[in-house]
Amino acid sequence: MTRALVSTLQQHVGQRVTIAGWIHAIRRLGDVNFVVVRDRSGTAQAVLTPAEFAPLDAIQPETVVRIEGDVVAEPKAPGGAELHRVAIEIVTPVTESLPFPLSKKVKVTQPTFLDHAVVGLRHLRHRAIMRLASGVMRGFRAGLDARDFVEVQTPKLVASATESGASVFKVDYFGQPAYLAQSPQFYKQIMVGVFERVYEVGPVFRAESHSTIRHINEYVSLDVEFGFIENHFTVMALLAELLQTMLEHLTTNHSAELAELGVTMPQLTTPVPHIHFTDAQKLLIERFKASDVLGEPDLAPEHERLLGTWAKDEHGSDFLFVTGYPMAKRPFYTHPDPDRPDYANGFDLLFRGLELVTGGQRLHRYDDYVAAAQARGYDLRPFETYFEAFKYGMPPHGGFAIGLERLLMQLLGIDNIRMVTLFPRDMSRLTP
Amino acid sequence: MTRALVSTLQQHVGQRVTIAGWIHAIRRLGDVNFVVVRDRSGTAQAVLTPAEFAPLDAIQPETVVRIEGDVVAEPKAPGGAELHRVAIEIVTPVTESLPFPLSKKVKVTQPTFLDHAVVGLRHLRHRAIMRLASGVMRGFRAGLDARDFVEVQTPKLVASATESGASVFKVDYFGQPAYLAQSPQFYKQIMVGVFERVYEVGPVFRAESHSTIRHINEYVSLDVEFGFIENHFTVMALLAELLQTMLEHLTTNHSAELAELGVTMPQLTTPVPHIHFTDAQKLLIERFKASDVLGEPDLAPEHERLLGTWAKDEHGSDFLFVTGYPMAKRPFYTHPDPDRPDYANGFDLLFRGLELVTGGQRLHRYDDYVAAAQARGYDLRPFETYFEAFKYGMPPHGGFAIGLERLLMQLLGIDNIRMVTLFPRDMSRLTP
Repeated sequence: MTRALVSTLQQHVGQRVTIAGWIHAIRRLGDVNFVVVRDRSGTAQAVLTPAEFAPLDAIQPETVVRIEGDVVAEPKAPGGAELHRVAIEIVTPVTESLPFPLSKKVKVTQPTFLDHAVVGLRHLRHRAIMRLASGVMRGFRAGLDARDFVEVQTPKLVASATESGASVFKVDYFGQPAYLAQSPQFYKQIMVGVFERVYEVGPVFRAESHSTIRHINEYVSLDVEFGFIENHFTVMALLAELLQTMLEHLTTNHSAELAELGVTMPQLTTPVPHIHFTDAQKLLIERFKASDVLGEPDLAPEHERLLGTWAKDEHGSDFLFVTGYPMAKRPFYTHPDPDRPDYANGFDLLFRGLELVTGGQRLHRYDDYVAAAQARGYDLRPFETYFEAFKYGMPPHGGFAIGLERLLMQLLGIDNIRMVTLFPRDMSRLTP
Repeated sequence: MTRALVSTLQQHVGQRVTIAGWIHAIRRLGDVNFVVVRDRSGTAQAVLTPAEFAPLDAIQPETVVRIEGDVVAEPKAPGGAELHRVAIEIVTPVTESLPFPLSKKVKVTQPTFLDHAVVGLRHLRHRAIMRLASGVMRGFRAGLDARDFVEVQTPKLVASATESGASVFKVDYFGQPAYLAQSPQFYKQIMVGVFERVYEVGPVFRAESHSTIRHINEYVSLDVEFGFIENHFTVMALLAELLQTMLEHLTTNHSAELAELGVTMPQLTTPVPHIHFTDAQKLLIERFKASDVLGEPDLAPEHERLLGTWAKDEHGSDFLFVTGYPMAKRPFYTHPDPDRPDYANGFDLLFRGLELVTGGQRLHRYDDYVAAAQARGYDLRPFETYFEAFKYGMPPHGGFAIGLERLLMQLLGIDNIRMVTLFPRDMSRLTP
């Protein structure tokens, strides 16, 4: 007996096959009954006469079944074929009712959905989101592997806060304090000295005690760092190419999920438009009458939204680089613009008006690190091993970090980051 | 001017090119001087007359340089070509002496090496180890992607210990206790209900307060879980195929690193031999006079070594499955052998006599979970969301976890796991 994935039924018309999966939906129409089965490839229907259906009358959705049947072409069936004359074997019975139906639009509140995510993620729409997450990671790695980058997995338990300022979670490490890495920043820079070009896909932890639709406290960071750059424009060029590769990967390999979610793929122009921070402020004042930006060292979310609109209208682009933020708001390892040292050789990439990526050129000389840390009044001891790498020759380098969930959120037009996160962690949620 | 990787010089004989990298070694021979440059692709030498060398006399190894020169074929040079008539630009100077030479065999103690790993990892041998680590991960993912598995990234911050018994690190989560996941076990099983087939590559955390050459407290786990299996033999078959794919990936893509490290690739026979736990005990008694195994619920490391020897001698295999360990020593979610319920439908895979992988079939019915947890006297509340997934139909499933560093250690014949870990974490080490 051929074992078939439900998405391949049409290739088996005229044969008798076995499919296996979950009962996704049951449609009782009297004369005829449909049992819709879901497996990893999609859904398909089995057609049962009233006599065939009678023993299954009490069956619950999500029951795990193996179904043998004749494959019959049926243009109206999903996938163009369905099973007739079926024999259904119940592999794992279900006795409880679902917290909410998985075969219809999810109508429960977000907290209820998240409470039951262990089963809610089986919903085709949510499954598609998480499969796209895997596609983003795969496209990211493929793009970098092809460019000679090496993957690293750096420690998440660290002896001190990675970047001064941001909040870190404290861990009891055999009676001593340790912290969860809020970024692989220091390690990825160190590894430029080893491999020149590195990337990491892994969790980062932010103990920020605010609750917004764009923040979670543990997320997946797609980190890149590489050496022998000219300046931040070399980094921006790689990022633009990489995003192109990633979007193409999704279009090629995830058309079903993109269709399920009704995604409009973004426009990534070549080159991606860029605007200096000071020009962005001028634009916001002159075109958008946003006089509150004057003298500010950063852009507010509302300003980013306006700039996103401008990039779309003016350049036909869903992406916009804002370069040259004031050094005052950037971490101490940031490389200044040699011509305007109050501004950074760095950038944010806005995607549809939301900050998606932060990156730039870093300092690469030991003396510059010591001076920058001292200028901020930092104790140098926690940085000792990080700084050691710079004693022994580091090339001009830079990199960036993409938030996996932020990217999904903007790509899919979903307004809360929790709904694109496998099992989100926030101030009030540690389960499931 | 052509920018060339040093490993490609032979393709540029007769041209003038620029290379960029680190000064790996300097050899002063009087009449002629060699400057060996390392970049991500390998090393190559530039040949300097005394006059050309004079201004560089004080140069330190690891200085970052850009060198322009004529490529000349030279059979005695590494890579078959070298640079003549060079112009050397110093990109980043080095003023300090290295903690130990990077161009010779490392002779410092292991703690000294690890203290200076941020620069020590640049050593060609250590760089090769960490590049093989990336190759193992890539081979693992490639093997699973090709078999319809979906990658997941599950939370590392959890509300309770994942598996009862093992030690977990405690985190202060906004004033509440949280823990670092010691395994993605529960999440990967939950995700079988969504994707059928899943994998994860990520950090796991073990607060085990022992110090051995085979244990570290944070390591990279290569996790697999999939549904619709027959029993643990289905899982073992996938594991054997996957290891084959991974080893082939290394042979194909990492011959330089394998040669650098003098690796003898292991023999993976088809099928991989397997022996039941009770038969392994008999064998240890009868052939190896290891009478101390009698009545023990597990195998000691020395017994695993003896079984490894036996597998090699008897079956010509570097791998051996030991199946059917006593249920008493296995976690509560383990599926028992239906014919001998005191023994598990599970396995360990020994690689050259060391436990490399643990895996098996899991329980898949909700009632079995409740009964198994109650039989061990567990409080059911921490398992509530995990168990919810089983209320709603889970197929027979199983999986395994491979420790990345253990695999490297055995593959490379390196006797301390710290030397194959990027930046190891143990009871006395949290830096670099």
